[in-house]
Amino acid sequence: MAGGPSTVELAAAVSGAGGLGFLAAGYKTGDALREDIHALRALTDAPFGVNLFVPREDVIDEAVLAAYVERLREFGELGEPRWDDDYWQEKVDVLVSERVPVVSFTFALPSEAALRSLRDAGSELWMTVTSLAEARAAAAVGFDALVLQGVEAGGHRGSFTDSKEGEGLSALALLRLVATEFPELPLVAAGGIADGPGVAAMLAAGAVAAQLGTAFMVSPEAATNGAHREALAEDAPTALTRAFSGRTARGIVNAFMRDHEEAAPVAYPQVHHLTSPMRAAARKRGDRDAFNLWAGQTHRLARPEPAADIVRRLSGEAREALESAARRLT
Amino acid sequence: MAGGPSTVELAAAVSGAGGLGFLAAGYKTGDALREDIHALRALTDAPFGVNLFVPREDVIDEAVLAAYVERLREFGELGEPRWDDDYWQEKVDVLVSERVPVVSFTFALPSEAALRSLRDAGSELWMTVTSLAEARAAAAVGFDALVLQGVEAGGHRGSFTDSKEGEGLSALALLRLVATEFPELPLVAAGGIADGPGVAAMLAAGAVAAQLGTAFMVSPEAATNGAHREALAEDAPTALTRAFSGRTARGIVNAFMRDHEEAAPVAYPQVHHLTSPMRAAARKRGDRDAFNLWAGQTHRLARPEPAADIVRRLSGEAREALESAARRLT
Repeated sequence: MAGGPSTVELAAAVSGAGGLGFLAAGYKTGDALREDIHALRALTDAPFGVNLFVPREDVIDEAVLAAYVERLREFGELGEPRWDDDYWQEKVDVLVSERVPVVSFTFALPSEAALRSLRDAGSELWMTVTSLAEARAAAAVGFDALVLQGVEAGGHRGSFTDSKEGEGLSALALLRLVATEFPELPLVAAGGIADGPGVAAMLAAGAVAAQLGTAFMVSPEAATNGAHREALAEDAPTALTRAFSGRTARGIVNAFMRDHEEAAPVAYPQVHHLTSPMRAAARKRGDRDAFNLWAGQTHRLARPEPAADIVRRLSGEAREALESAARRLT
Repeated sequence: MAGGPSTVELAAAVSGAGGLGFLAAGYKTGDALREDIHALRALTDAPFGVNLFVPREDVIDEAVLAAYVERLREFGELGEPRWDDDYWQEKVDVLVSERVPVVSFTFALPSEAALRSLRDAGSELWMTVTSLAEARAAAAVGFDALVLQGVEAGGHRGSFTDSKEGEGLSALALLRLVATEFPELPLVAAGGIADGPGVAAMLAAGAVAAQLGTAFMVSPEAATNGAHREALAEDAPTALTRAFSGRTARGIVNAFMRDHEEAAPVAYPQVHHLTSPMRAAARKRGDRDAFNLWAGQTHRLARPEPAADIVRRLSGEAREALESAARRLT
């Protein structure tokens, strides 16, 4: 939930209620991350996690990117379509010195050096994967847990190589495939989970935990934009798109996605930076057709409750769902 | 599992072991369906179901279809790209006279007349849907159960309107969305379920049953082609394709899919009939790159066990998975 909905207050409320709240470190400097961690620790003593985007320098098609820049000229203020490493090393250094309970990674396998320093600092290390091949690569490196992101998930796909045409495994399919091959590895299921029965399903399928994003995006603690909140409450369909960031992500379908999807290049974070000022302006004027409405497939199940209430409701519903299903089967 | 893997022996073994075996009526005449039903009843007294493809006359792009016919000319024997209703009325008549326990429908809502006559004959009526909108349409008509087909499922998508670019809800996401809106309607989950923990997940999420196809395709009772069986046992990725039938279906990626996907029209059953002789010939010579290798996303979890053993294993694993998850949560 980097770049918007994620807040210190949200992570604190989730952790305080017995969940494991996460801070989104993406798009932040090392100093900003450190401030967030300090603010979170001032609010709760409970364990928490930090999610990091791992930079990778992909070969991109400069001509397609240039054409996309031209195409978007008329749509308002644009940023520079530049590559950057999202302050990687300074954030790793902050995390090493802050000794946070859990660090999760998305987009690529981190370097051995970064992993070693974080492990030495006492952090549990989780890796986000979207396919069995990525799970194997992560298992070979050695992580404390894998986060299995299904195609249902809102926001960016964590795939190591961006491919909208990939298999698109659902969270449950991915979970069963990975659990069968790595029965001892703790697995966290993510994608399309927005209520207690959904959590129960993942636990029944062998996950040690379920990871939810969209379910918390309409809570008062989230910094989700108002127009975005309205869209989340509707029946609006979602789709995968590269139009906003140059990397495949799931969001509620809007005019910008429809108009530019076909032309959008695989170029992250270049396109992210390109459209960033345009999206910020659209958010400010409440124009939901011109910024990224990240959302998982079950976004309409999200309820505008305080985050702690959501955690408690999910837990109660999940317990009830498992007990009820177990009764029906005997 | 019409057009290949489905057999009377498979349905009988599943029903005999306490599951609900289904006969696939698709691509069969009324007489052939009647023979199957009689043969099944000679093997078991247990309840069973019959799945029917519901014909619909879509407007198709004749120019794109003609170009596809031209494109495939070099690939061997082709059939006539004709529309037909797949012997709809004669199969409905057979089912009315045979009074089968469950009739399920796929591809479109059947006429009120057909539903009334089947209901009067005592059959339970189930409708396959792939989206919340389709679930609402089916609920308005009135069915005894909905089969919720997730995007993970092998073979044809049951969508009323064929759209590969649709939302592609996973079985679990679809289940939670529909169950929240129709809490009293019995829901059967389908797609990507191939083992007991997968079944347990769907029951925990509120389904009354799980429907499995691919999980039985390597059983000895299935009539699955040998080359197809080999592919199912591998790590091979699946994808959605219209190349074989003119209707979106999931199968293991092969050369024919890769070569023709982009050119394939939305034209079912025209393209089905067009490629049918070519696919039959490829099956015969064991050329897995030239026929449809229908498979769900978790096909590699299927095991070559007798169908009755599969049913018993799924049931035992599901019970264990639910009890274990319930224990972990308390």
